[in-house]
Amino acid sequence: CSAHDDSLDQTRLLMRLCSERYYISSEAFNTRTCTYGPLGTELKKNIIDLWTSAIRSRAYVFGISNSMQSRIPEEPGRIVNLKSFQEILSKDNPSKEETSQNIQKHLKDSLSVRTSLLQGALQQYIQALELVNRTLPFGLAETGLCYNFDNQLRHSSDCSSEVTESSLVWFCSPRTSSQWMDYWVHHRLKWWRKFALGPSDFNLCNVGDESLKEGASHGVKVLYNFPWGSETLETLWTLGDTQLLKTHQETSVKVQCRDGRKSVVPHVISVSVNVDRGMLAYLFNSLQRLKKTDSKQKLHQRTVLKLHPALTPVKVALDIGRGSNSELRQVCEGLLQEFLEVGISTWPGYLDTKSLENLNTKYDEMGVLFTVMVSESTLKSGLLLVRNRDTTIRETMHISEIKCFLLKYISASENH
Amino acid sequence: CSAHDDSLDQTRLLMRLCSERYYISSEAFNTRTCTYGPLGTELKKNIIDLWTSAIRSRAYVFGISNSMQSRIPEEPGRIVNLKSFQEILSKDNPSKEETSQNIQKHLKDSLSVRTSLLQGALQQYIQALELVNRTLPFGLAETGLCYNFDNQLRHSSDCSSEVTESSLVWFCSPRTSSQWMDYWVHHRLKWWRKFALGPSDFNLCNVGDESLKEGASHGVKVLYNFPWGSETLETLWTLGDTQLLKTHQETSVKVQCRDGRKSVVPHVISVSVNVDRGMLAYLFNSLQRLKKTDSKQKLHQRTVLKLHPALTPVKVALDIGRGSNSELRQVCEGLLQEFLEVGISTWPGYLDTKSLENLNTKYDEMGVLFTVMVSESTLKSGLLLVRNRDTTIRETMHISEIKCFLLKYISASENH
Repeated sequence: CSAHDDSLDQTRLLMRLCSERYYISSEAFNTRTCTYGPLGTELKKNIIDLWTSAIRSRAYVFGISNSMQSRIPEEPGRIVNLKSFQEILSKDNPSKEETSQNIQKHLKDSLSVRTSLLQGALQQYIQALELVNRTLPFGLAETGLCYNFDNQLRHSSDCSSEVTESSLVWFCSPRTSSQWMDYWVHHRLKWWRKFALGPSDFNLCNVGDESLKEGASHGVKVLYNFPWGSETLETLWTLGDTQLLKTHQETSVKVQCRDGRKSVVPHVISVSVNVDRGMLAYLFNSLQRLKKTDSKQKLHQRTVLKLHPALTPVKVALDIGRGSNSELRQVCEGLLQEFLEVGISTWPGYLDTKSLENLNTKYDEMGVLFTVMVSESTLKSGLLLVRNRDTTIRETMHISEIKCFLLKYISASENH
Repeated sequence: CSAHDDSLDQTRLLMRLCSERYYISSEAFNTRTCTYGPLGTELKKNIIDLWTSAIRSRAYVFGISNSMQSRIPEEPGRIVNLKSFQEILSKDNPSKEETSQNIQKHLKDSLSVRTSLLQGALQQYIQALELVNRTLPFGLAETGLCYNFDNQLRHSSDCSSEVTESSLVWFCSPRTSSQWMDYWVHHRLKWWRKFALGPSDFNLCNVGDESLKEGASHGVKVLYNFPWGSETLETLWTLGDTQLLKTHQETSVKVQCRDGRKSVVPHVISVSVNVDRGMLAYLFNSLQRLKKTDSKQKLHQRTVLKLHPALTPVKVALDIGRGSNSELRQVCEGLLQEFLEVGISTWPGYLDTKSLENLNTKYDEMGVLFTVMVSESTLKSGLLLVRNRDTTIRETMHISEIKCFLLKYISASENH
């Protein structure tokens, strides 16, 4: 059917674009590992930074960071040293039972790998209590690698068992936990949609009772509608106090907080996002194919990665018009240094002088926000030609104004 | 000996301070895992951000990110699934040889874990060539987790086999590779010393011929002089072209770059920093114990964590003077929100109303740069009392000026 073909087309187009345009390394698609090129790396960083600043702009959210080692012995993943196994297996004398016991012992002593960031936050709870003077609510936020060994549940878009997660663990009064759950659910959906080109592809879905995790009384997911179906980007759980009490068994008095004049054991709400999958969602969401006919009635297709300006990995590309020479190159290098110094991510397009023909096509596929063209006339008049990705309008601008213009545009787009 | 006692004292003092002041979780010292509280997390982030922006302020350095999975089968670390082992071991019939073979096979198929970031950058080299149009020099930068299984070489300050590394892999013409090595060596030392209270504790050391890694012709280390001896923070290797050619065996023509009019296989310089150990170095380096006698000839000791303003995790603490009430609390909450919105990392000290007595002691140990005190008089006149950590001077400042003052102070300190 044609809808199916369409979605396959879209997937193929995005895969080509990601690998040709430095988002995701081409071999990553084949080996299914999270290997990102310069643009993918920057996009992922932008997503993490925006997520973190949205979460932390609430008062009383503190960043923490824990080792990837988990202290839960039930976790299935282990990091082991190949050499130790070879030593055990190379022994000649022991029986099968002895070998088996040695291996079991070695596995037991080896490092286990976390599957989520929740446990680390629960473990840092007691120390955090002190810094908020036992006052609720407060939260602990973390970004880090997790390993997912649940092969049955593996979705098609996951690049490997390795996932970068960002997590907020929110501690609040049992009285207000359902309001807080509502607050965070809407906070999260609003955030995803804020940076989307097609906000309606991001949706909420309640987790059915049969799929609730241990101790959870309620779960909500933020889904993205990929061409092959919906997948979960972010998950919110109302966890009650079960897991918190379990983590601090021997110190249950120390777990208590003030709620007005009462002492309570707080309830836990956990929010966690799969950053790699969120990145893929924004890539699919911002891919736009526009058809237009030119003056000769010829059909043209324009492919643009219309990422939100705040997400866009490359804000400006610097290029030289026809007739490149060392003087023009120096102007570009000067501008590049000036932009990098104030943190504007800039693409040194002038290095690649051959492909001037397809420049706009290339930059539109990369999602570059502005193309700044330096030419002979820049040397005389100081004027640059600046092209906007979204309007495709070219304006001339004086070289002394460009930095301020870009900074204002970027900061305005981040706040609205 | 007294020098030995002194260094033990300093280590104990810093350990107490790190665990009481939210840098490193107290249990992390015992379990030797990288578990950081809110201040440690922020300090580590600041170090990574400053390192990255110093490296990337050079033109033609691109960020990349690779999976923790390594594609080098010789790496000793493996991530395995416990359940698969239990399945193999629980089979009754097979002989010891069969079990051993099954385990060997399973280990061979399992994910190996990277021990450095070098290989990932070498692998992305071909794609990166395209974006710089085969022009040298250029670099690939990455920050990520690595695992170190070399127990014999484990140093006392490493918290576990898990290490966060930041790495630059620099590709340059064979002609200029020794000049580039000099450039990066001095760049790196200058950077460490720029943020140091005692710059002379950061030093360079040449790696002896006997310790050179495979393919390396020259190595330099940046060392920090810890109380228990010198340890390596950052390592620079001149690697020639051996490893690059080995990685791209079948495509050696594709490896070539332009060097003026010639085609050359570039030489590789690798720069990599152990971020966790760098963080510990700056903590030790900025710990200052000052003795002073008061008017009654009584000896006082002041302990300050004089971290460089750019590194300091908490720039401002907000507190209420005597007579806390809901009106003053609202002033604090308003200021907190205002500071967070512009990215000033702020400590909500007003939550903890009890410990006003030892406030300066506490904040000095946390390294808080400014303490802003809101009081009854703020409500009348709009004036705040602002204390500077480094000068201990208190000034009054109008509430409308404080945000600008802080932003200017922080940005000035970052640029000088």
